[in-house]
Amino acid sequence: MTTSASWVDRDAAVVWHGFTQMATFADNCPVIVDRAEGHYLIDVAGRRYLDAISSLWVNTLGHRVAELDQAIIDQLGRVAHSTMLGNGNAVVVELAEALSAVVPVADPHFLFAADGAAAVEQAVKMAFQYWVNRGTPRSTYLAFGQAYHGDTVGSLSVGAAGFGTDLFDPLRFPVLRAPGFTSDPDLDTACALIEAHQGELAAVIVEPLVQGAGGMQTAPPSSFHRLGAACRANDVLLIADEVATGFGRTGSLFACEQCDLWPDLLCLGKGITGGYLPMSATVATGRVFDAFLGPPERTFSHGHSYGGNALAAAAALRHLQLLAEWNVLDNVAARAAQLAELLDRQIAADPAVAAIRQRGLMCGVELATPGADSRWGSRVAQACTRRGVLIRPLGDVVVVMPPLTITDDEIRLIIDVLHEAIAEVSHR
Amino acid sequence: MTTSASWVDRDAAVVWHGFTQMATFADNCPVIVDRAEGHYLIDVAGRRYLDAISSLWVNTLGHRVAELDQAIIDQLGRVAHSTMLGNGNAVVVELAEALSAVVPVADPHFLFAADGAAAVEQAVKMAFQYWVNRGTPRSTYLAFGQAYHGDTVGSLSVGAAGFGTDLFDPLRFPVLRAPGFTSDPDLDTACALIEAHQGELAAVIVEPLVQGAGGMQTAPPSSFHRLGAACRANDVLLIADEVATGFGRTGSLFACEQCDLWPDLLCLGKGITGGYLPMSATVATGRVFDAFLGPPERTFSHGHSYGGNALAAAAALRHLQLLAEWNVLDNVAARAAQLAELLDRQIAADPAVAAIRQRGLMCGVELATPGADSRWGSRVAQACTRRGVLIRPLGDVVVVMPPLTITDDEIRLIIDVLHEAIAEVSHR
Repeated sequence: MTTSASWVDRDAAVVWHGFTQMATFADNCPVIVDRAEGHYLIDVAGRRYLDAISSLWVNTLGHRVAELDQAIIDQLGRVAHSTMLGNGNAVVVELAEALSAVVPVADPHFLFAADGAAAVEQAVKMAFQYWVNRGTPRSTYLAFGQAYHGDTVGSLSVGAAGFGTDLFDPLRFPVLRAPGFTSDPDLDTACALIEAHQGELAAVIVEPLVQGAGGMQTAPPSSFHRLGAACRANDVLLIADEVATGFGRTGSLFACEQCDLWPDLLCLGKGITGGYLPMSATVATGRVFDAFLGPPERTFSHGHSYGGNALAAAAALRHLQLLAEWNVLDNVAARAAQLAELLDRQIAADPAVAAIRQRGLMCGVELATPGADSRWGSRVAQACTRRGVLIRPLGDVVVVMPPLTITDDEIRLIIDVLHEAIAEVSHR
Repeated sequence: MTTSASWVDRDAAVVWHGFTQMATFADNCPVIVDRAEGHYLIDVAGRRYLDAISSLWVNTLGHRVAELDQAIIDQLGRVAHSTMLGNGNAVVVELAEALSAVVPVADPHFLFAADGAAAVEQAVKMAFQYWVNRGTPRSTYLAFGQAYHGDTVGSLSVGAAGFGTDLFDPLRFPVLRAPGFTSDPDLDTACALIEAHQGELAAVIVEPLVQGAGGMQTAPPSSFHRLGAACRANDVLLIADEVATGFGRTGSLFACEQCDLWPDLLCLGKGITGGYLPMSATVATGRVFDAFLGPPERTFSHGHSYGGNALAAAAALRHLQLLAEWNVLDNVAARAAQLAELLDRQIAADPAVAAIRQRGLMCGVELATPGADSRWGSRVAQACTRRGVLIRPLGDVVVVMPPLTITDDEIRLIIDVLHEAIAEVSHR
């Protein structure tokens, strides 16, 4: 038994992996990570894998970033964590101030949590209580087909029926559902529903620019601008879920910027700490925040123990500085253009490829599978991983989402390997 | 303007604190923490506060623990985070193995998340899907009055109507509700409901031994043993929420041990990393885990990006070792006995005190307030904090929950200060 196989067995004996059929976990050659260097993960047997999915969409600057390591070490010399309930922490104030300068939210106020789903839950509940506090309760939400907002019951309720979500229907609250971006990229139906249901709608929730887990479904920026205008015109709150798109992934620091979209509530997560530590945040406008000021019953009685963790805040603060100091968005622009060109040249014409969707360094290659049982998505991903490029698919959509500091050569490697993997699986 | 006041203003301008009426945040003399030393937090003006609430029930060994700091620094030298979706990480395997040896769960399997509420959501959804996967769907839950399980919609649904939770009733799914521990400490009604509703109940969810946020409500260990027996006899799953009670807080490593309670699903959080980093986990028995093995539709399609964060896992692993190496539970026993004696001698007979409830180093002092508007709880807490002992109340219940490594002298200080604070507020 090799070291690696032994680690897989040890893992399978005690760890339950999310979104993973554990009966076949060990057979699917899982990578058991021991350490990392830059954009590469290194497994327990010393094999190296280019992290082409940014450790599931969270990593931005690569691994083992000396500056982020140092920020955490410095904060360890102060304090790892203190509670945010009724009290504060200096580094969290500094982080919130730094974020204030860049988020597409007017007069922003930050409520921190640790899981992205919790940030969505906070936004959904804030929107609900906003109307209660104003004396005009509303409990309806408009959400989109193909949407994904996380796995807790509230997040699952506003999410669409992907990933077998409908299984949990008896636990989910009902929402008004607009078509996904694929069938209505102009979001016309959504805008019409907002007008038809104004006065009942507490909020609209949307992933701006890209529906990530729904298969990298995209719509033009102008659609989201119009969606925002419809919300304003009909006095409905807008929640933008940028857990996946935030912190440079789509080419701008936030996808909302490309859409000229100013949400009332913004959900952040994943990239917020550069992919280092669990942190999420719900950002509310002054208008929303102010509705919670007053007697005790107006209080937002919600708070996660580790919200505003000082070590995560220190990492997030330094990460935000590094994005600017290193002109990371310039690299995203250059690499996104290179990626588009290589996809067009090497992948798009392949008969095994049905469609390619890309915004910045968020990209989905949809395979033209011969049938639902062909499992091409996971087979292509495994063929990439065997070649040293770690990929994890969304069904038949192969996701390419490298760290934002990815290099020219590494983009070439990813596309060369993807090209070979598709060829292997489609037997050409 | 003092440095401290300036920090409070900066904080109030951008940070939204959970469970906090932000209109009066600045007036309530919040502590803005700059750094810490051992059991003391130090604010931005250099004032020192004994952390008598363990930074909201999470801290176990104090702050700035050299061994925990080093474990995080060592892990930074390997990798901060890699995804657990379909893949693994060596330190997470080591942590799960170490936890396996101590959790009160038969053949345990660990699904990690970052917020405690997410661990509860995972347990609730696993219980639901367990019955779907077995071909006999059930969607009813039995939960307790006075229960608190977190703030996300699923956790809020199984929680009771405290903290204005009923505000969100249109979003919460309905559950069967047994009386809280206060009115039925033998849990007889719960046991009867389990029998009456067997066949429909997916699971019972309970905080073993102590309902923490409900005001430190307690019931005898034998009640929980009988509850477990009723679940087994009627083939209903049992979820134990040990987010607050776990990792030594009540005197044993897990409260379930004192109750001889073996849950099907166990929720962990807070103390799991010693209060350093966000981490939570849902622990399932082999019986539950096995029901998810098989075709793709049996998969548990749930997973948080930062679940199984490597830095948090490294801290949690070292923390578990330190609890044993330092014989921390021996200190909990000694300090809990001392705390009980001092409470009895200095606090219990005070006419301003209605009741004292304690299990290990989890303690609530319920004040005999002259009326609901007297705000004695928060006024006593502020009087303690002004004297250098950080306390945060639950309504009129003053919580005393020091780190597990608290010393003899520090326990004396807490009780002396609490005694003075109660006297001050009740004007004797």
